[in-house]
Amino acid sequence: MKLHRKPIPVKEAVSKVMERMKKNSHERVNLENSHNRYLGEDITASHPIPPFDKSPYDGFALHSTDTIGLGRGQAEEFRVIEQIGAGHRASRPLKKGEAVRIMTGAEIPEGADCVAMFEICQAYEKNGQSYMSLKRELKPGQNVIHQGSETKKGTVLVQSGTKINPGIKALLATFGYDQVKVQRKPKVGIFATGTELLDVDESLEPGKIRNSNAYMITAQVERAGAEAVYLGKLKDDFSTCFEAVSKAAAEMDILITTGGVSVGDFDLMPDIYKELGAEVLFNKIAMRPGSVTTVAEVEGKLLFGLSGNPSACYVGFELFTFPIIQGFLANPFPFRRRTKAYLNKDFPKANPFMRFVRGKVTMRDGKIFASPAGIDKSAVVTSLAETDAFIVLPGGTKGFKLGDMVEVILIEDSGKQEAFH
Amino acid sequence: MKLHRKPIPVKEAVSKVMERMKKNSHERVNLENSHNRYLGEDITASHPIPPFDKSPYDGFALHSTDTIGLGRGQAEEFRVIEQIGAGHRASRPLKKGEAVRIMTGAEIPEGADCVAMFEICQAYEKNGQSYMSLKRELKPGQNVIHQGSETKKGTVLVQSGTKINPGIKALLATFGYDQVKVQRKPKVGIFATGTELLDVDESLEPGKIRNSNAYMITAQVERAGAEAVYLGKLKDDFSTCFEAVSKAAAEMDILITTGGVSVGDFDLMPDIYKELGAEVLFNKIAMRPGSVTTVAEVEGKLLFGLSGNPSACYVGFELFTFPIIQGFLANPFPFRRRTKAYLNKDFPKANPFMRFVRGKVTMRDGKIFASPAGIDKSAVVTSLAETDAFIVLPGGTKGFKLGDMVEVILIEDSGKQEAFH
Repeated sequence: MKLHRKPIPVKEAVSKVMERMKKNSHERVNLENSHNRYLGEDITASHPIPPFDKSPYDGFALHSTDTIGLGRGQAEEFRVIEQIGAGHRASRPLKKGEAVRIMTGAEIPEGADCVAMFEICQAYEKNGQSYMSLKRELKPGQNVIHQGSETKKGTVLVQSGTKINPGIKALLATFGYDQVKVQRKPKVGIFATGTELLDVDESLEPGKIRNSNAYMITAQVERAGAEAVYLGKLKDDFSTCFEAVSKAAAEMDILITTGGVSVGDFDLMPDIYKELGAEVLFNKIAMRPGSVTTVAEVEGKLLFGLSGNPSACYVGFELFTFPIIQGFLANPFPFRRRTKAYLNKDFPKANPFMRFVRGKVTMRDGKIFASPAGIDKSAVVTSLAETDAFIVLPGGTKGFKLGDMVEVILIEDSGKQEAFH
Repeated sequence: MKLHRKPIPVKEAVSKVMERMKKNSHERVNLENSHNRYLGEDITASHPIPPFDKSPYDGFALHSTDTIGLGRGQAEEFRVIEQIGAGHRASRPLKKGEAVRIMTGAEIPEGADCVAMFEICQAYEKNGQSYMSLKRELKPGQNVIHQGSETKKGTVLVQSGTKINPGIKALLATFGYDQVKVQRKPKVGIFATGTELLDVDESLEPGKIRNSNAYMITAQVERAGAEAVYLGKLKDDFSTCFEAVSKAAAEMDILITTGGVSVGDFDLMPDIYKELGAEVLFNKIAMRPGSVTTVAEVEGKLLFGLSGNPSACYVGFELFTFPIIQGFLANPFPFRRRTKAYLNKDFPKANPFMRFVRGKVTMRDGKIFASPAGIDKSAVVTSLAETDAFIVLPGGTKGFKLGDMVEVILIEDSGKQEAFH
C-alpha cells in the first residue's frame, strides 16, 4: 500500500494534532516533589500577606501619640518593657510611655502603631530597667507593614497549568499547600523501528548503526514534562510490529515510533495504521526535515510516527508532540517561545518547503541572533547537541543572508556566559 | 558580637567564592539516567560517521562505469539481483550490468559506487527476474554518503562538564556509551533558621509564618543540577544551631542556611561562624536585596548564610551558590547567561547600591525587553513566581526609564507563546 501523499502546511498539521487535545487527570504529590510539575489547581492566598502587622526593621514599637511634639531638643523617655523577635509576640499590650524592642518581621504589639528604627533611638539602662529616648515625631503606621497590604486573602496568585518553579514552590509553602494537586504526567511510549538498529551496548556490525533516536526522544519527552516509557526496538517485521504497536497504543497516553514512515519497501508504519483502523491525520507535511512525519489516532490515542532520521525525528517531536504533551499538562501556553532574531551567518540553501534549521541563539546589545548549528558537514552529528532553537525559514524562499531577520523557536536555554563583570 | 561590616562589591564577592572552587568526583550512570547530568569525560567518536558508505535515498545501487554514455534516448538495462534495507547487507558483490534495490540508510554494496533514485529508473519484471532501466549517466560517488564524511573516528564531539541534553544523549547512544561518566552531584544541605517558622502543614499562629525559603532553595538547588538535602528548621537557640550546623558542614559538600545573618538580637549565624572557627569570606555586599549575605568556609566546606527575606534569599543563591555548584559540576561556563535588554517599564527608584530587580524577559522583533516582576506592592509575593531574570542596576544610579538599556541575568526560560502562526 503506497498512498499518494498530499503535503499539508505545518500550521495545519499542528492544528490537526491540537484538535485532539485531551484533558489529563490529576494527582497529589508532596510539596517536596512538586518541582517542575504542572499545577492542577490555581494557587489562592489562604491568608493575607503579611498575615499580621509587622515591623520591616529592627527598632522600638510604640504609639505615635506618645511622640507628638518631639523634636527641636524635645526628647521623650520610653520604658522598654520587653523584646520580641520574629515568631514571638509581646506578652501584654503597651501602655502610655512604653515601648517594645522589636526585630525585623516580628508582629507589632497591641497598643503600638509605629516603629522607631534603632538608628534614631538612644537605649540605656537605669536601675536594671531598660529605657529608650526618642527625639522625633512618628506618624501612625510609620514603619509598619500592614496585614494584607501585599496580598488580600482569596487572591488567585498562580493559574492552574503553570509549571512549578522555585518561586511558585515558595508560594505553595507560604499558603500551606503541603500536598499539591498537579497534572498527572502523560505516559509516552517509545518504539524505535528498524532492523538496522543495534543496542547501545552492542558492537558495531557491518551495515548497522546503534539506536540513538530512542534515547534522544526519551530525553525530549522528559524535558517536555511527561513520563517516557521506552518500549524497545522493533525489527522490520509486520506482525511483530503490529502486535507491539497495538498493545502499546492501548496502554499509553501517547505512542511514538521512530522510523518506518517513509515509502521504502521496509517502511511498515503506514500498513500498521491501516490494519489498526487508525485515522491518519496527515502523513506528509510541507517542511524539511521531517516531511514524512505521520500522526494517526486510534481509539482516542495519538500515534506519532516520527522519521528515523535523527534531525527529522527531533524536529517532528518538538513541533507536533511537545505541544500536545503541554495540552495534557493543561499548560495554557502549549507552544515554545517564538521570536524574531537576526541571522548570524549566511544560509545560502533555497527553501522549496518551510525549513526548520537546527540553530543556536546568542544575545548581544539587547538583540537576538541565531546561527545554524552544524551547517558544516563535519558537524552533522553534533548539530543536535548544540541546538537550542529552530530557525524557521518559510517555504518558497531563496537563501538568507547574515543580518536578515528570521523567526526562531526557542528549544532550551543552554547559554554560555564567560564571567561576572 | 556585632562586627563592623564593610560592604564589598558584588563582583569581588563572587570572585572570593569562586576561588574556593573544588573539583568534584565522578560516577557512572546508565545512559537512560544521564539526562540533565554533567559529562565527566569528553565524548569522542568511537567510529567514523557514517560507519560505512550509505545511500541517502531509496533507489538502485550500481557502478557508474555501467552508465557511461547514457542519455539522449540511450537506456541501459540492469539485472536487479536483490534488495537490501537499512541494517542488511548485499549477499555478494555486484557484477557488471547488475544493480541492487537499496533503501535509505543501507550500505552501498561492494561493486557499486553510486545510487540512482527510484524517480529516474524504470523497474519491471521479465520471466520472474527483476530488471531496471536507466537513461542517465551517473558519476562515481553520486548519491553516496561516504564513510567518515560527517565525522572522523577519534574526533572530540562534546566537552567534559557539558550538561547532557537530548541531542547529546543521542550522541552518547550513537557511540556506544551505555554507561556514562558524569560529575557526581554535590550534596547541598539546607537549614531554615528562625523561631517564627511554621511547617507547611501547620496552621498559622499569631506572629508566625510558614517556612517557604527551604522549599524554594531546594528547587533552586535542583535546578542548578545539585542534590538538595533539606535538613529541617532551626529555632533561634545557639547551642542547637551550632550542633546542627557543625554536623551538617562535615557531611555535606555545601551548606546553606536561610535567615539569622543580619544584626538583629536573634541573628545567631555570625556567632556560629566564630565558634566554628570558620573563615568569613564576606558578610556584607554592596547590593540590594541580600546585602547581609554571608559566605564562610570551615574545613574546606563553604557555608552560605542567605537572608531570611525570600527575595534576598533567592538572589543570594543565584549570584553566589549557583556558580559554585556549576564549578563542582565542572561546567566550563559556570555563570548564567547575561545580556543587555531594553527596560520595558520605568523603574523610578534610585539605586544607592547595585540592585538586582526580579524581572521578566520578553522578546519582540529581534530585541530583548525586561520588566520588573511585581513592582506593585500587591505582587510582592508573586514576583518570584514570575521571575525569569534579574535586571542589574548599577549602584550610584538614579531611576531608569522605559527604553533604557540595562543588563539582565537570565534565570529560566518560562516564555509564553500564544499559538503557532
